[in-house]
Amino acid sequence: MKTKYDVLGIGNAIVDILTHVEEEFLIREGLTKGSMQLVDEPTAATLYDKLGQAIECSGGSAANTVAGLAALGSRTAFIGKVRNDQLGRIFRHDIQALGADFPTPAAENGPTTAYCQVLVTPDAERTMCTYLGACVNLTETDIDPDLVQNAAITYLEGYLWDPDAAKAAFRKAIRLAHQAGGKVALSLSDPFCVTRHKEEFLSLVKEDIDILFANEEEILTLYGTRDLDEASHRAREDCDIAVITRSEKGCRIVNGGNGGNLLDIAARPVHALVDTTGAGDMFAAGFLYGLTRGDDLATCGRMGNLLAGEVITHLGARPDIDLKSFLDENLENNLA
Amino acid sequence: MKTKYDVLGIGNAIVDILTHVEEEFLIREGLTKGSMQLVDEPTAATLYDKLGQAIECSGGSAANTVAGLAALGSRTAFIGKVRNDQLGRIFRHDIQALGADFPTPAAENGPTTAYCQVLVTPDAERTMCTYLGACVNLTETDIDPDLVQNAAITYLEGYLWDPDAAKAAFRKAIRLAHQAGGKVALSLSDPFCVTRHKEEFLSLVKEDIDILFANEEEILTLYGTRDLDEASHRAREDCDIAVITRSEKGCRIVNGGNGGNLLDIAARPVHALVDTTGAGDMFAAGFLYGLTRGDDLATCGRMGNLLAGEVITHLGARPDIDLKSFLDENLENNLA
Repeated sequence: MKTKYDVLGIGNAIVDILTHVEEEFLIREGLTKGSMQLVDEPTAATLYDKLGQAIECSGGSAANTVAGLAALGSRTAFIGKVRNDQLGRIFRHDIQALGADFPTPAAENGPTTAYCQVLVTPDAERTMCTYLGACVNLTETDIDPDLVQNAAITYLEGYLWDPDAAKAAFRKAIRLAHQAGGKVALSLSDPFCVTRHKEEFLSLVKEDIDILFANEEEILTLYGTRDLDEASHRAREDCDIAVITRSEKGCRIVNGGNGGNLLDIAARPVHALVDTTGAGDMFAAGFLYGLTRGDDLATCGRMGNLLAGEVITHLGARPDIDLKSFLDENLENNLA
Repeated sequence: MKTKYDVLGIGNAIVDILTHVEEEFLIREGLTKGSMQLVDEPTAATLYDKLGQAIECSGGSAANTVAGLAALGSRTAFIGKVRNDQLGRIFRHDIQALGADFPTPAAENGPTTAYCQVLVTPDAERTMCTYLGACVNLTETDIDPDLVQNAAITYLEGYLWDPDAAKAAFRKAIRLAHQAGGKVALSLSDPFCVTRHKEEFLSLVKEDIDILFANEEEILTLYGTRDLDEASHRAREDCDIAVITRSEKGCRIVNGGNGGNLLDIAARPVHALVDTTGAGDMFAAGFLYGLTRGDDLATCGRMGNLLAGEVITHLGARPDIDLKSFLDENLENNLA
């Protein structure tokens, strides 16, 4: 399959508002550490008033992955909905500046561009409150068949299952991708997101997903087990490839084809951990970068580990350095 | 004089858009490295299209100083004009979150909130293109006499001389401050800004300014000399205190009163220099923090050096750490 794009990402188009908080703040506000919670605009405004000084940085799970891939030189595109406002302009600039195509028109009216208040605790864990804003207006009509049919991999974020209209867009993208012979990848996004949509996700994963990304908690939640080996076994039956990210332990690659082996790839210890925002997204970028250029699965896993290890050393989920040089140097020196 | 505020800052209310560029980019775009250039909106938009991924962070020279002072626990307020848009909301949130009062109402129409494209080269120098936006609508009526009369020091940025209507606001603030027995401080902001307004700045400094902040290039430009001692001598005649920041050399304090001595305060070497944006602003914050709590001038200079040394180790002009602890630890351990 000769394609124009290595990866087409479809997801919520979000600008992150990142700030530091103490553990007590999360307790006081009743926020579950490490989770992503959806909030309405008044709730977001009330929370914002309680937050300290912040910085703003483009975000969104699949968009972060596309940004990482684009920074590495992959041919990428992104579908997601912003409004024609200042945050929307920032989001569009940032993803295009990295070289990704972003043809989805901005909404001319309705809710503002989505933003996510990312609260980073001293242990570098992030807890997120997302106002979906314009993302609720992503619909089937935003799924341009030309884009999907020209992508080797169509990558979807689980979070996209939250805004109702996006589900239809999601399903249309899967249908078009498979018709054209492309692969469909899904990131489960968040254990709470999995809980919200468990039955639908289970049937999606079984029927439609070729490549699954999940962290340990997400895949355990999906399969309703506390046993990682059992979850791995289930995933092997459901998908061609499942990749389970395991924080400091690295990742497990579950290979559904080719004899069905498991690969556990250790990660290098990360010093100076600052902010885990985007770790899973950048893992997926590194992994898909390798996969689409034909690397073996172990190398894909090492590259995912490396990129996840890089993004957590600074605030924000987007690449902060020349990712390509970083990856090449680490692989050459066998540091992954 | 018993006051409600230690420092009232008046300046352009700006959100910074920070990004890395190579030296060649500045040359190609005809930008003078290290300078601040005013641009109209189409020019800003054209430049933005050429820039890489960025992060956004509240900025503005006097606003940065107020933010630093507020973070240290000083009683502060800020006067400046944003619009009621997303960037304006970000600016307002960030300065208030640090504890500063910001009573200036947002403009309901007219140009958007100002933004500054901050281009950081690999040597950590920053080159700025500013779209003044809503700042041009700061007028005399925004200078609330109650605020000015209740501030021990009214701190003005030279950049405020760029939008025409703000000049009248600037002069009103000086008049009110002096009537109430307060001191007036001015930062010269930028050598090009000094060149633009040289005659007016010379007469301001001579007649109205009690405390002058300038870097070496700015004060040399102001007095039309290449001799720092000559410029220091002239400043001693014009102001109570003049503080000349000298990058890695630290600062020179020119004491107009009390026998007129000069104090040269060395700075500690800074490792891991990232971005010089805000160095002068945070110097002023450290210096004014000491001055308003009654420290001797040498200690004020050391605190200015320390804060300037901190802000250049990260991207953006606003404090990134607990500044008070940072200052206390460094002073206690005699590391300044």
